[in-house]
Formats: sequence, C-alpha cells, structure tokens
Amino acid sequence: MRVLFAAPHGYWSRWAPALQAACPEMTLLRESDPAVIDAIIYAPGGEISDLSPYVNARLVQSLWAGVERIVTNPTLTQPLARMVDPGLAQGMAEFCTGWAMRAHLGMDAYAQDGEWRNHLVPPLASETPVTILGTGELGRSVAAMLGGIGFPVTGFSASGRAVPGMRVLGADQLAEALTGARILINLLPDTAATRNLLDAARLALLPQGAWLINPGRGTVLDEDALIEALDSGHLGHAVLDVFRTEPLPPEHPFWGHPGVTVTPHIAAETRPETAAPVAADNLLRAMAGQPILHLVDRAKGY
Amino acid sequence: MRVLFAAPHGYWSRWAPALQAACPEMTLLRESDPAVIDAIIYAPGGEISDLSPYVNARLVQSLWAGVERIVTNPTLTQPLARMVDPGLAQGMAEFCTGWAMRAHLGMDAYAQDGEWRNHLVPPLASETPVTILGTGELGRSVAAMLGGIGFPVTGFSASGRAVPGMRVLGADQLAEALTGARILINLLPDTAATRNLLDAARLALLPQGAWLINPGRGTVLDEDALIEALDSGHLGHAVLDVFRTEPLPPEHPFWGHPGVTVTPHIAAETRPETAAPVAADNLLRAMAGQPILHLVDRAKGY
Repeated sequence: MRVLFAAPHGYWSRWAPALQAACPEMTLLRESDPAVIDAIIYAPGGEISDLSPYVNARLVQSLWAGVERIVTNPTLTQPLARMVDPGLAQGMAEFCTGWAMRAHLGMDAYAQDGEWRNHLVPPLASETPVTILGTGELGRSVAAMLGGIGFPVTGFSASGRAVPGMRVLGADQLAEALTGARILINLLPDTAATRNLLDAARLALLPQGAWLINPGRGTVLDEDALIEALDSGHLGHAVLDVFRTEPLPPEHPFWGHPGVTVTPHIAAETRPETAAPVAADNLLRAMAGQPILHLVDRAKGY
Repeated sequence: MRVLFAAPHGYWSRWAPALQAACPEMTLLRESDPAVIDAIIYAPGGEISDLSPYVNARLVQSLWAGVERIVTNPTLTQPLARMVDPGLAQGMAEFCTGWAMRAHLGMDAYAQDGEWRNHLVPPLASETPVTILGTGELGRSVAAMLGGIGFPVTGFSASGRAVPGMRVLGADQLAEALTGARILINLLPDTAATRNLLDAARLALLPQGAWLINPGRGTVLDEDALIEALDSGHLGHAVLDVFRTEPLPPEHPFWGHPGVTVTPHIAAETRPETAAPVAADNLLRAMAGQPILHLVDRAKGY
C-alpha cells in the first residue's frame, strides 16, 4: 500500500513515526508518481493541494477533525474521512481542568516578593461553580473531569437537553448559567446563534473576578467587550485558545494584556499517538473494500 | 456552654461565624473569667497561652491537625483533641492536582510576546508519570484525584505496603520511584529517615525538566541541592509550600528564584466550613460526658 503524506512541512516529524508504527503494511511517501498512490493522508497547508492527479486513491484521510477548510478543495473528489481522535476529548478536558484549577487555586496571587500571604487559602472545588457552554462530546468530557475533582458543573445548550450527571440549562436560562459561574468555559460551535453570544451585556452577568476559558470558537466572543470587562476589573482573567484570526496577529491587544493568556489553538489538538491507529484502521478498510469510518457527507460538508 | 476562643487575632473573622453556625448552643468568647469557661478552642500564637486558670474546661479542641507546638505547652493539662478536617485531604489533593496540571500542560511556556507557538502541544496525562512520596491518607487522596484525570501514579513508602489502585514502591526502590517521575510530590512525614531524603544525589535521579511539588515537610529537602538542580537546568520547577523556617524569611533565595514558586503553607489547610462541624460535635460530646474524638495521647505526643 502506497500512501501519500500531503500535509504542512512540520507535520512529518510528528506524524510519520506514529503512522508507520500503526500501519507497518504502508509505504508512506512525501512525493510520488500520482498514479501509484492508493490513499492520501491529508492536512491543508502543505505543498500538495491539487489532489486531482491521484486517480487511484481510494481514501483521503484527514488529520483534522474539522474539515471546513478541506471540503472546499474542488480537486478533492475521492472519499474523504475526517479524523476522530479519542485523545482529543481527553486533551480538551485536561486543558480546561488545568486552567480551571489555576483560577480556582488563585495560583497567580502568590507573588514571589518575599511576602508570606498565608491568609490566601484557596476554597474547595465544591465552592467554585463552573459553567460549560456546550454539552456535546467535548463539553461532557470536560464536565466529567471537573466533576470528578469536586467542582459543581452546570452545562448550557440551546436545547437544554439533559445530560447524565450534569445540570443543563437551556436557551432561555443563559443568564442563570452566567451569573452562577465563577469559571466559564466556552465549547459552543460557531453558528449564527452563537456568534457574539458573549457580548458586553452577557459578560457583565458573570460574577466579579470570574475567569473565562475559551477553547471553543473565537467568534463567540466580542473581543472589545472582553478587554473592557478585564480593564474595568469585572473579570479576573481570560484564557483564550481560539481567535477570529489565527495565528493571532502580533499587534493584537490580547498579546501582553495582563488579564489575558493566549494559547495557540492547542486545546483541541489531534495527537499522532492516539490518532495514527484510527488512520491505520481506515486505510486498511479502504484497501479491503470495507466501510470507511467517519466518512464526510459532501452535501452537508461534515 | 461558654467556650473560649484562644487563637491568633486573624482567626476570629474566619472561624467565629462557622463555629457559631455549627454549634448554636455555644457562647463563643474571646475573653472571660476563666472559671466559667466550659471548653477552649485553641490555636497557638494568640494572646492567651497560659491555660492553667481554665480549671473547669472539659476540652481543649485544637484547630490544627498537627499538635507538635501544642503538646509542649505545660499549662495545657485539660483533655486535648486534634482537628481532623474532612476538607483537608480534599484541599491537599486539589493543590497537588492543580500544580501538577500546570507542570503537565506546560502553561508557563506560552509567553505572551506575540509569538504563536503552535508546536507546543501538551502531552496527555497518560504520558506524564507522577510519583507521590508517602502513601498515607493525604498521598492516597492525591493519587485518586490524579489517577482520575489519567496520570500514571506511583507511590513510595518505606514499607512499600500495597494501596488499592496504585503501584507502590518500597524503601529499596526509591531510585526507581525518582527516575520514573516527570512530577514528584512529597508528602512524607518529618522523621529521622526522611530528613534530607531529597539531597543532590536523589534530585539528580529525576528526569531532566521534572517538577517537584512539596506540600509535605520542609525538612525532607536539601534546599541548597534544590537550587543547584534548578540553576543547572536539570529540574524544571519547584512548588514549595513548606519550609525549614516559616514564614520563609524575606531574604531566603527561594523568593524570587525563577525556578521556584513559594506558597505560604496553605496546602494542608484546615477550613472553617468543613472543620467547624467537627469541633461542634466534640464540644457537645465533652459537655454530655461522651467520648471525645481525636483525643491526643499525651505520652505519644499526637
């Protein structure tokens, strides 16, 4: 089996060893006569973007979970599978839990200036309510990890549909979801209904000193309103992993703002060690003529 | 019931409301004719240290778990109970988990300088082994929380006695416990065998970049050896909550060292909201002539 690796340059060193280990049957190539290629492992941004010459490829396996930037490639006519990495939800839960613990424990209050601040005793997690906007697979994974530590977790979704082990509020209860949140985590998708959902009025509902953690979508947030809420001292801190423009431009006011921590879109990362076996399974399925998993519906676009 | 509150000045505002709420039968006084006092709630360092005039007190309920500094008071001849706060083990687990997550996620690597470091993807907790020195109640509580997140946890104790759900190494396996620890948490008690256990040779066994979290006892650590291991770049960071001298003197080299975070002995904190009901229960027991809980054995000293 000859598989073309068509992805940005930096991907090779991270992915090739894991993919070879997961699928020893495969010869992984970075360039080749297109006609002999049986399948393609793909992520946008590399040197190869015209996939039309690869007429014998039976599968294009995306390395990304989101395929918005892939389905728009008109040369990609082969069957396309998106990546469903079991490590992704775990990684998201760890990211949110780690930053929630930093907020909860007040880690940043212990300045290293020689002053013994022994009055700064953190509360227990049971006294630190967390609201998670979005109760999909990722939101539930985060809620389970936070709940395991002892945080009271409230979910919010447009439907308000019940989720085991979590109080879930619906569309008409957003105010309640916000006023009760010492820590707010956004995992809502980018839709017409969620765009600018966290505007000045909504951010004002959060309690004094609350933290915002946004590893979901940058479009949910009114960036100017957030900076005002931080500058006025109403919000405690914002940890932002997603932005309207990525990479976040060096001149953006979030960089260097004392109330903001920017992380470079790493919370929902696909990891070679957990994703490579998923790709290998799909490649073998395609070769054997078996059903391909996580096939993208080209009409729906996901 | 008239109860004397004999504790440092700052304790009153934190403790009095919780104690009153937990024990409405009680009149809590900060000064009184000693003869009418039925019981004493005590922590060292306040204005009252001579307890000999309180001849009718049937109980001295300590607010501290450790009574080393209390049993040495020769004027304290009344029955003495130490504090066993159910919130303490939970708080310790939260402290260790929060700082372990900060190490694990590499939070401090995302400098807010405008550079988009999207190659800095954290590993999963399953790839970050943690060793806990000490497998008592606190060590087990920390291990359970870290294990719930996905960290592989190894315990170490002199006996090596098995603990459910954790690999435990014994006295002759300390080297193995250290070489395998990306994050090392010390919860060993202060004994002749543990003093200076973490010396230069032991710290050298930790992998490059490892973090040390010490909320146990300051005497376990050779402070000079730690500073050398940080300065040489061998260790990544140290989070220290306990010290040979407390409060840590302002001129101590730990303050301001870029590789050290000092927290002011707050990891093993007794919290009024969870501890006050324990004190109330014991006060009522003493008044009713029932057995007092957590009574200190004055011969043993604990």
